[in-house]
Amino acid sequence: MDFAFDARTEELRDKLLTFMDEHVYPAEQTSHEQRAALASPWDTPPVVSELKAEARKQGLWNLFFVDEHSLPDAEHGAGLTNLQYAPLAEITGRSPQLAPTALNCAAPDTGNMEVLAQFGTAAQQKQWLEPLLAGEIRSAFAMTEPEVASSDATNIETRIDRDGDDYVINGRKWYISGAMNPLCQIFIVMGKTDPDGPDLRRQQSMILVPRDTPGLEVKRAMQVYGFEDHWHGGHAEVVFHDVRVPASNLIGEEGGGFGIAQARLGPGRIHHCMRLIGMAERAIELMCRRAVSRTAFGKPLAQQGVVQEWIADARVAVEQLRLLVLKTAWLMDTVGNKGAHTEIQAIKIATPRTVVDILDKAVQLHGAGGVSQDFPLAELWAGARTLQLADGPDEVHQRSLARRELKRYL
Amino acid sequence: MDFAFDARTEELRDKLLTFMDEHVYPAEQTSHEQRAALASPWDTPPVVSELKAEARKQGLWNLFFVDEHSLPDAEHGAGLTNLQYAPLAEITGRSPQLAPTALNCAAPDTGNMEVLAQFGTAAQQKQWLEPLLAGEIRSAFAMTEPEVASSDATNIETRIDRDGDDYVINGRKWYISGAMNPLCQIFIVMGKTDPDGPDLRRQQSMILVPRDTPGLEVKRAMQVYGFEDHWHGGHAEVVFHDVRVPASNLIGEEGGGFGIAQARLGPGRIHHCMRLIGMAERAIELMCRRAVSRTAFGKPLAQQGVVQEWIADARVAVEQLRLLVLKTAWLMDTVGNKGAHTEIQAIKIATPRTVVDILDKAVQLHGAGGVSQDFPLAELWAGARTLQLADGPDEVHQRSLARRELKRYL
Amino acid sequence: MDFAFDARTEELRDKLLTFMDEHVYPAEQTSHEQRAALASPWDTPPVVSELKAEARKQGLWNLFFVDEHSLPDAEHGAGLTNLQYAPLAEITGRSPQLAPTALNCAAPDTGNMEVLAQFGTAAQQKQWLEPLLAGEIRSAFAMTEPEVASSDATNIETRIDRDGDDYVINGRKWYISGAMNPLCQIFIVMGKTDPDGPDLRRQQSMILVPRDTPGLEVKRAMQVYGFEDHWHGGHAEVVFHDVRVPASNLIGEEGGGFGIAQARLGPGRIHHCMRLIGMAERAIELMCRRAVSRTAFGKPLAQQGVVQEWIADARVAVEQLRLLVLKTAWLMDTVGNKGAHTEIQAIKIATPRTVVDILDKAVQLHGAGGVSQDFPLAELWAGARTLQLADGPDEVHQRSLARRELKRYL
Amino acid sequence: MDFAFDARTEELRDKLLTFMDEHVYPAEQTSHEQRAALASPWDTPPVVSELKAEARKQGLWNLFFVDEHSLPDAEHGAGLTNLQYAPLAEITGRSPQLAPTALNCAAPDTGNMEVLAQFGTAAQQKQWLEPLLAGEIRSAFAMTEPEVASSDATNIETRIDRDGDDYVINGRKWYISGAMNPLCQIFIVMGKTDPDGPDLRRQQSMILVPRDTPGLEVKRAMQVYGFEDHWHGGHAEVVFHDVRVPASNLIGEEGGGFGIAQARLGPGRIHHCMRLIGMAERAIELMCRRAVSRTAFGKPLAQQGVVQEWIADARVAVEQLRLLVLKTAWLMDTVGNKGAHTEIQAIKIATPRTVVDILDKAVQLHGAGGVSQDFPLAELWAGARTLQLADGPDEVHQRSLARRELKRYL
Repeated sequence: MDFAFDARTEELRDKLLTFMDEHVYPAEQTSHEQRAALASPWDTPPVVSELKAEARKQGLWNLFFVDEHSLPDAEHGAGLTNLQYAPLAEITGRSPQLAPTALNCAAPDTGNMEVLAQFGTAAQQKQWLEPLLAGEIRSAFAMTEPEVASSDATNIETRIDRDGDDYVINGRKWYISGAMNPLCQIFIVMGKTDPDGPDLRRQQSMILVPRDTPGLEVKRAMQVYGFEDHWHGGHAEVVFHDVRVPASNLIGEEGGGFGIAQARLGPGRIHHCMRLIGMAERAIELMCRRAVSRTAFGKPLAQQGVVQEWIADARVAVEQLRLLVLKTAWLMDTVGNKGAHTEIQAIKIATPRTVVDILDKAVQLHGAGGVSQDFPLAELWAGARTLQLADGPDEVHQRSLARRELKRYL
Repeated sequence: MDFAFDARTEELRDKLLTFMDEHVYPAEQTSHEQRAALASPWDTPPVVSELKAEARKQGLWNLFFVDEHSLPDAEHGAGLTNLQYAPLAEITGRSPQLAPTALNCAAPDTGNMEVLAQFGTAAQQKQWLEPLLAGEIRSAFAMTEPEVASSDATNIETRIDRDGDDYVINGRKWYISGAMNPLCQIFIVMGKTDPDGPDLRRQQSMILVPRDTPGLEVKRAMQVYGFEDHWHGGHAEVVFHDVRVPASNLIGEEGGGFGIAQARLGPGRIHHCMRLIGMAERAIELMCRRAVSRTAFGKPLAQQGVVQEWIADARVAVEQLRLLVLKTAWLMDTVGNKGAHTEIQAIKIATPRTVVDILDKAVQLHGAGGVSQDFPLAELWAGARTLQLADGPDEVHQRSLARRELKRYL
Repeated sequence: MDFAFDARTEELRDKLLTFMDEHVYPAEQTSHEQRAALASPWDTPPVVSELKAEARKQGLWNLFFVDEHSLPDAEHGAGLTNLQYAPLAEITGRSPQLAPTALNCAAPDTGNMEVLAQFGTAAQQKQWLEPLLAGEIRSAFAMTEPEVASSDATNIETRIDRDGDDYVINGRKWYISGAMNPLCQIFIVMGKTDPDGPDLRRQQSMILVPRDTPGLEVKRAMQVYGFEDHWHGGHAEVVFHDVRVPASNLIGEEGGGFGIAQARLGPGRIHHCMRLIGMAERAIELMCRRAVSRTAFGKPLAQQGVVQEWIADARVAVEQLRLLVLKTAWLMDTVGNKGAHTEIQAIKIATPRTVVDILDKAVQLHGAGGVSQDFPLAELWAGARTLQLADGPDEVHQRSLARRELKRYL
Repeated sequence: MDFAFDARTEELRDKLLTFMDEHVYPAEQTSHEQRAALASPWDTPPVVSELKAEARKQGLWNLFFVDEHSLPDAEHGAGLTNLQYAPLAEITGRSPQLAPTALNCAAPDTGNMEVLAQFGTAAQQKQWLEPLLAGEIRSAFAMTEPEVASSDATNIETRIDRDGDDYVINGRKWYISGAMNPLCQIFIVMGKTDPDGPDLRRQQSMILVPRDTPGLEVKRAMQVYGFEDHWHGGHAEVVFHDVRVPASNLIGEEGGGFGIAQARLGPGRIHHCMRLIGMAERAIELMCRRAVSRTAFGKPLAQQGVVQEWIADARVAVEQLRLLVLKTAWLMDTVGNKGAHTEIQAIKIATPRTVVDILDKAVQLHGAGGVSQDFPLAELWAGARTLQLADGPDEVHQRSLARRELKRYL
């Protein structure tokens, strides 16, 4: 047992921390100013491209791409293990609107690239994975539906019906992250090819749908506590009305959708948790800076017991969370995503709610500023809070984890 | 001791509940549709005027106006006690974007009307109170400042300087609710006329500033968790740059600002708490409706233990809160706002945080819908959460209440 | 609606507060010293008898006896409503080991007296109710069983079998409060007379079993977090082995046990809640006294923010709880115990857990003293914590209350 | 970074787990029965000696003794690092009344042995360390005082005055763990040799006082929520009245007491946390066993959502805690106790309160059994709760940790 990062991780951490200081943090203000001048809120501020170019130059590119995937073009990934990537993803979480995108490590592209690398055909990889790895286009993952509890994939109502050499897709999806961004060129759509099949986990398939396919309507931007999340390309409601794509757009085989979704979720969840911890660190920093600079009732907030309690509890919670996420990454590397199932569920339960609480305290400490657009806290809070719902509400994961614990005693 | 409402209250409750069913709830959808067609988001949907007309016709108008005020024109108010008004205000809280305005009982106008009625000159009342009581204009209360912990009024930096027959105002305010609404014609501004005076509570004065006064700039809409709160006229940042008004615009006397603010706060706080309880009731209703209509893991949410726990705890909490608010109203009626000081502080502490928690559970139960614009929950949550900060953060009130409790043992 | 106590209540409160100051609080120390000299820890310190005599003399006797009961000897009760009794019971809760007993208002005797008054025959009342009302003997209520979730009375396993002119009782009970006290002369035992009957709520009966009946074994004192609760006669495990009593000992009719238990629970729960609120007041007082007298890190605890937060939150919580308990008492008086069912359940859920939390903070503030026998806090905590379990765990009541709330929307 | 235990740890874990199964768990029942037959509750049940003999035979002895200490007789310790010892200590925490003592790894002896090894003279080690390492005697550490907030050592009031070749000790201590056990032969006493010295951290000294020294009175057993903690030799109030010992009994130098206490605390705290995690594991096991075996409302508790939530949250919390404790152990090994100061404080804050909460849920799930002496839960709870106070209340550590966090921004 050893709690020190290895040399490769330390080297990349140093590099990334410098990149954050020199490029990302200064770009936060710039990007806000540029955003105000954009023709559409869904366009990307120019500074983002500059950050991407710089990151790529420095080798801080596609760091998420873990080495278990056999890539057509191996140079694309950094070849890191989950355990090596974790502390880097955390650092990007400190500036979550810019840093993950700058490094081409932003959701949902990361998960989509992994799906294409693992399950895509050579042609699919050529057409979609290559430009994604190059950061030239963005992508979306269309799973959640408004009418059903779609965290249980057996409830999905979207249909993917074979018709000759094509598949025809009909359904309604929402909270499809990134889809408002015009750069988002490709959708991975989850639906049912065999809705009446006997095996509930073989009814689903995944299929590639290019944005410009007739019948695909990006209908509106869904809000998250009033935010539209322009930075991440928003969260769209998308309607599929007789959307026709060639059969070769299917990812993997018919009935393989559930399995691909499961494979996709593990890394996706851990990436979210890593970044959330970075957000918590940012919140602690902002709390401390505020506490030492504001005075109320004759002494700095930093000397007031309640504020000290918040800061201490935040620190204690973050240290624990980080270790559990790192251990989970290590388990994924050593025993695989399935072997790490319980731990992945544990971090999915623990991380958002803990970070939500830390951000809430940070908001409170900033007074009206905390709920305003002048500090990043309210928006970070809304994002973290949503992760208590996204990809299954906390309660579903608690139930599942408890059942596994109880099984030992049955 | 008697927990039954009196006959006048019961009669008005019946009337108001019918008004909600027949006019307000149906107008919720209408107003959203009308809002989408407005030239400016700060304009008011036409249905609001219709609601106001109907409410006035039915005698559901200015209900907040308690009978301790001697009005120039006594017919304006309903002559209710706080205890009679409380359960009515609660009902309006179930549709907080429409009902309080419909009844001309919306903040900050209510507090401003009380200030004018209690401290205004006949001329001030003629010019500003009358059109406010008639619902023809709106008003703002400019106290909070971005640079200081202005919940402590001794920190206020805005200057009101005497210059001949005028006062000249300089300062920066933010989160000035209602000020984005073009109908908001008059600002009550808190500032210091005697910033170096020996008595820290006699340095402040309040003054009337018409919206169109040169130098008054309504600079931008402040956000609340991504929401701009169009319904209430937003929360503006307002800059006062050499704003000159006649000396007769002063409310009360020089140095009286602190006292007026104190007098204004009690009723304002209790009104907020009443409406918050109505929001909590709306949240419970939405939770129950969702729970009986959604199925997950083979049974309705309504039969799942965790959901039952949320609903039970919400019900138990709301029953307690309501009684404390009612008792506080009764104390204000019987021993005055000063005698009810501790209880006013208690409801200020207890209500927002409890209602925030209930709304949070309601959001969670609604999944992605909960954080979206398709349900009112996220916006209600943001409003309730902000009341943990507005008019002094919870911690300030806890500190003050504890000191009073401890004083008995010193 | 009126939050003032009526004249009779105010008069009795004054009298009782004086009695507490003059007799009960001084007896706390005395009784501890006397207890150390007792032959058996289950004996009663002599000062208790003195307190009883004094209370009776002052008319502070059997105050719990509400006037809906038709008593053989009407002079025994004070003829108070629940609403009048509530604030008096609260006061006794400030010294829960002495005051309720001093006033002959201690559980489980109160509930047992009510059962006998309401359901007992004249002979049963003559034999058992009279000496109980006179405070000459004590009694126990034997319902809880170790092997089953007996908060659900349909699970009860104790048998009451008819045999000629007798009933024969077999079963095992535990946590039978008061039974270790040798003054406890009579047991009301709940068991099944018709275990296979079709109506699950008609299988149970209640029967009177004198302590000295052969086969009744008071086996051992059950602990509550290390405490044996000598003051209340402990909580015994009691075994019934072929215990034979005449058929005339049955209370009410065969199959009536469930109904009697239900009738008994409402008042019992509200009495517990009233006293718990008194305990919370005692805890707040002790917290404040400690806070003003102890110094750490250069200033009194009373000036430390975290301590202030605890005290404020305790005060705010207690005010709300008290009002809900009072309203519940009022409902019991006006619409009956059944009409007040939801509120009785609400106070059963809310009160113990809130008071547990307040007592826990008080313990923390007292450091090692808090967990010790030198302050009453740890023992009060253990008693309050147990009420989250006794008479059905919180979760059972939350479930039931939620189902009633949800029913409106089905 | 590597989360696997090393081979030595794995080997010892296997051995210890087998020892627990074969010897410790079976002895739990035996020891309770033997305890009932003891002449004094402070005597030790015979099975404890058997366990000790067996553990020593198996090499499971003095495992806590870390290798940085230079021992007079090196064979006594197992030569483990903190990181190697941590998971073993955790396992002993599953049966905290027997296992730590069986392995000669029980507090406060462990800390006392470390003090003697590190700061004792050869003669002191010969006389006291040797029999302690051999498990022949027990010891006590007398620091806490009833009259002052002694978590701040500068408040200590006990005097150690030089008088010729002797020191004379006067003072009152309480919660001196182990001191009720007649095997406890030696007290390490903290007091002031230089109460007016200019350096507040040089006023204190530590001194060895044999139990039979005239003037040392073990006055009474302090309770912990009603428990006297017979297993650990209780927690005594001890009065020192002109207790005279030779000057050679001083440990280290005059004025060195504060430093020794600091050195002692780090390992002591981490040992407590390790064992607490073992207790939490025991609680989870008991919860699960209960949940699968009890039925309420027609289905096993294990299938009820609220119970599942408790179990899931307990598992998630324990995993995080354990990792933080292990990392802290690793830091102590690699950068020393001082370098690990923040983390030691973090586990001191996080562990007791988390384990208290888990034990509380376990109690609730066991109903009346949970608060009784028939399950270990109530007693474990009381022990864990006390650790939120012992060695400084949580609030002191939160304050200190926050100040270190804030210091970076000053």
